[in-house]
Amino acid sequence: MGQSKAPSGVGRRIYELLRGQIADGTLAPGARAPSTRALAADLGVSRTTVTAAYEQLAAEGYLVTSAGRVARIASPPAVPAPSLGPRAARRARRAPTLSGFGRRVGRMALPVPASAEPARIDFLYGALASRDFPTLAWRRAYQAELLRQQPRLIYAAPEGEASLRRALQGYLRRARGLACDAGQILVVHGSQQAIDLCARLLLDAHDAFVFEDPGYLMARRCFEATGATPLPVPVDAHGLDTARLPQDERARLAYVTPSHQFPLGGVLPIGRRLELLQWAQRQRAWILEDDYDGEFRYGQRPIDALQSIDADGRVIYIGTFSKALSPQLRLGYLVLPEALVPVFRHAKRLTDRHAPALDQRVLASLIDSGAYERHVRRMRREHERRRAALLEAVSRHLPGEASVIGAAAGLHVVLWLPSLRPRDEAALAAAARERGVGVYPVSPLFAAPTSRSPSSAPSSAPPRPAGLVLGYASLSVEQIREGVRILAALVSGPARG
Amino acid sequence: MGQSKAPSGVGRRIYELLRGQIADGTLAPGARAPSTRALAADLGVSRTTVTAAYEQLAAEGYLVTSAGRVARIASPPAVPAPSLGPRAARRARRAPTLSGFGRRVGRMALPVPASAEPARIDFLYGALASRDFPTLAWRRAYQAELLRQQPRLIYAAPEGEASLRRALQGYLRRARGLACDAGQILVVHGSQQAIDLCARLLLDAHDAFVFEDPGYLMARRCFEATGATPLPVPVDAHGLDTARLPQDERARLAYVTPSHQFPLGGVLPIGRRLELLQWAQRQRAWILEDDYDGEFRYGQRPIDALQSIDADGRVIYIGTFSKALSPQLRLGYLVLPEALVPVFRHAKRLTDRHAPALDQRVLASLIDSGAYERHVRRMRREHERRRAALLEAVSRHLPGEASVIGAAAGLHVVLWLPSLRPRDEAALAAAARERGVGVYPVSPLFAAPTSRSPSSAPSSAPPRPAGLVLGYASLSVEQIREGVRILAALVSGPARG
Repeated sequence: MGQSKAPSGVGRRIYELLRGQIADGTLAPGARAPSTRALAADLGVSRTTVTAAYEQLAAEGYLVTSAGRVARIASPPAVPAPSLGPRAARRARRAPTLSGFGRRVGRMALPVPASAEPARIDFLYGALASRDFPTLAWRRAYQAELLRQQPRLIYAAPEGEASLRRALQGYLRRARGLACDAGQILVVHGSQQAIDLCARLLLDAHDAFVFEDPGYLMARRCFEATGATPLPVPVDAHGLDTARLPQDERARLAYVTPSHQFPLGGVLPIGRRLELLQWAQRQRAWILEDDYDGEFRYGQRPIDALQSIDADGRVIYIGTFSKALSPQLRLGYLVLPEALVPVFRHAKRLTDRHAPALDQRVLASLIDSGAYERHVRRMRREHERRRAALLEAVSRHLPGEASVIGAAAGLHVVLWLPSLRPRDEAALAAAARERGVGVYPVSPLFAAPTSRSPSSAPSSAPPRPAGLVLGYASLSVEQIREGVRILAALVSGPARG
Repeated sequence: MGQSKAPSGVGRRIYELLRGQIADGTLAPGARAPSTRALAADLGVSRTTVTAAYEQLAAEGYLVTSAGRVARIASPPAVPAPSLGPRAARRARRAPTLSGFGRRVGRMALPVPASAEPARIDFLYGALASRDFPTLAWRRAYQAELLRQQPRLIYAAPEGEASLRRALQGYLRRARGLACDAGQILVVHGSQQAIDLCARLLLDAHDAFVFEDPGYLMARRCFEATGATPLPVPVDAHGLDTARLPQDERARLAYVTPSHQFPLGGVLPIGRRLELLQWAQRQRAWILEDDYDGEFRYGQRPIDALQSIDADGRVIYIGTFSKALSPQLRLGYLVLPEALVPVFRHAKRLTDRHAPALDQRVLASLIDSGAYERHVRRMRREHERRRAALLEAVSRHLPGEASVIGAAAGLHVVLWLPSLRPRDEAALAAAARERGVGVYPVSPLFAAPTSRSPSSAPSSAPPRPAGLVLGYASLSVEQIREGVRILAALVSGPARG
């Protein structure tokens, strides 16, 4: 029986006509269907066309056919036929029944997606310039890997392609002082998936987690989605204030950004690193080290990863290609303590089988050829020029009115504006956006936004000024200068006027 | 301060030497560090090299420096320094503390990954032939999309690229009789992620889920990982036996494969479809329609999707590109009832932000140009030849000794072998593999494997023979013939001998 018999065009319309008549009762169950010969004559189409429609209806259970007999409408289904309108289905809104996770996620406040409405000069953190992507090298490697035929296409290994894990092992030793086995590496869909896997596998609703305050909101939300209780720990110029780590036996996990605290930019000193490790050991808690931009450190060599001094197998290292290549690539990785390797591989496989194999092999070939690290070095110089332009523009246009922190590394800074209060951040951002400049308030990254009322903050916390997170990785030096100039006019205007 | 000052080579070794001496107490807290001048002279290196190492140590908190003063070792960390051996960390194995989900996933039995040890002629279900991938069309579209620069690289929309969702909307209407809005479509990392998102958002540990018996193991495991109770419902030649749907108020979800039941191949008739919808309405349960191979139906037009007759907004449709393009691509999609759209988008964003943007745009361009559907038609003819070869080889080499079911659609069949018992399946598969042929027992796909003991099965279930799942999509006609011939020799041998 060939594909040529399948109803299409006129046959399709006959099929739909009969299906509609069966559904609305015009053709009652048990009744004879019109003979194919008669229907073909009535409609002026070939009998083959009608027969194909009937076969389709029989295959779907609307008709009962047997060789040489006239077709009959199938016995009544045990239930009334629903109306066939998908529009109606979409209108049928109701409060859906969800799991506890679903209810928590449903009512969760997430930042507006960056894909909406970019500003002309957008200091959006996490954005990169398209022209910085190593298009030629990527294209060459992609073509080579696409044409390197494997015998068959099957689900690949959940832990990631062996070639990429080997390449990453070498890269991590060279660039991040991290000695690990390739077997400890799990390739995932970006650091967000790494964080989500950790949240699912390590936290229950009755647990608690330590979180930097201020900190990375999309990570915090992942942990909160498990139902666990957040234990915010304040951050100062040196990152997490480890003296204030809670002695709370529910704490099962601490999420930290030791190489370049997000958003305030501090580098966690060795004393605090050791204190954090000791705390984790006492609590039997896990430490998530999110090394989201550790390759971009200016002046000094990048700080070695916290995991490199973890003697107790408590640190889970998270790396990403979102800052060095593209956030749209969705590739990142975990370096896991050995005890966690089997369960993370199982979970990755259940979650989505594995990361796309071809992109992984392309990346492996770029690392192996040295092209990846050349690109990172080039981008480090490029970002350093942007950072210098930003610092210079701030000291030119906002002298004495602003201070910049966190500029030693990464792709963003925080700009404190002592003449403004946190509650003014949103209005300033809105005014800047009207003038084509995107800037981002720092207050939403605090656990208890002091923008509500500085006096309600715990007495130990000094009142803080307004702050903005400025990402500069997607902008040209000229855009940075112009953006700061426009922003400065807004900041100086109201303060003086 | 330029990158040129960062320690590398000799500087790196000086850094490591000092870090080691600080860690082991040779350089005590508060003590003066060797002067850079002296150390440079001692080691015969430039003072700049030593200074760079000191700056790095200061940045990491090992040294305290101030302009014009000699550097000192930083005050004692409040905790003893751990040993610096990552090997030791990896050896420190212990039972890790995991969440309830983690513990369930950790002890879960999953099939051996397909990436291990392929057979020479492998009837692995889910495998495709690399030569069938539309390499040229893909490469052309990929290059065009890669070079079509966007102004900047930012996190893309969690629901997927607008171009792909529009293209899918048209495709689903043409190919699957499914009228939906592009807004109902959520692009995900393959159907496995679609299933996992449904499990997380719709099931709690105290819930239950309806499952086809036998059915798709990787879906069942996802639901079990939530802690919910499986309610297996038997399958016959027409798919799920809806008369046996449980009246269990814990049932929140039913997972079904109505277009081509996996693995037995039945097509769910309209009466049962309506009964299933009615049951879901009564139970306020969701139906997951996994349309994993609905585009490959031989002889008749593909059956319309179950969601196309859902008037109540209870059916979640799952589609994939794993069967038509490649399982390594990791792209699939959900068509959601409108009530579920917001929470699924939120969850996708928390889970891993979004699917890779470039692959999505390539796919959209292939669908828009018609190349995708041409490819599917070509593959339908190709697979039909393979299927015919398989059926022909079975009737030639195993006349009267085997029956094939589920051949009307999809990329696999089930071969029943009445002369063997289910408990013989594993030995037969092992013997076949020794002769270079990979075949897969059907028993593990049953909820209560009768391979343990047929007599322990509920009395209503007739004893069933041994069965094998044979996927043919990755094999040539010649391989299929040879594979069946080798298998037949093994089946006929012991039965007659």
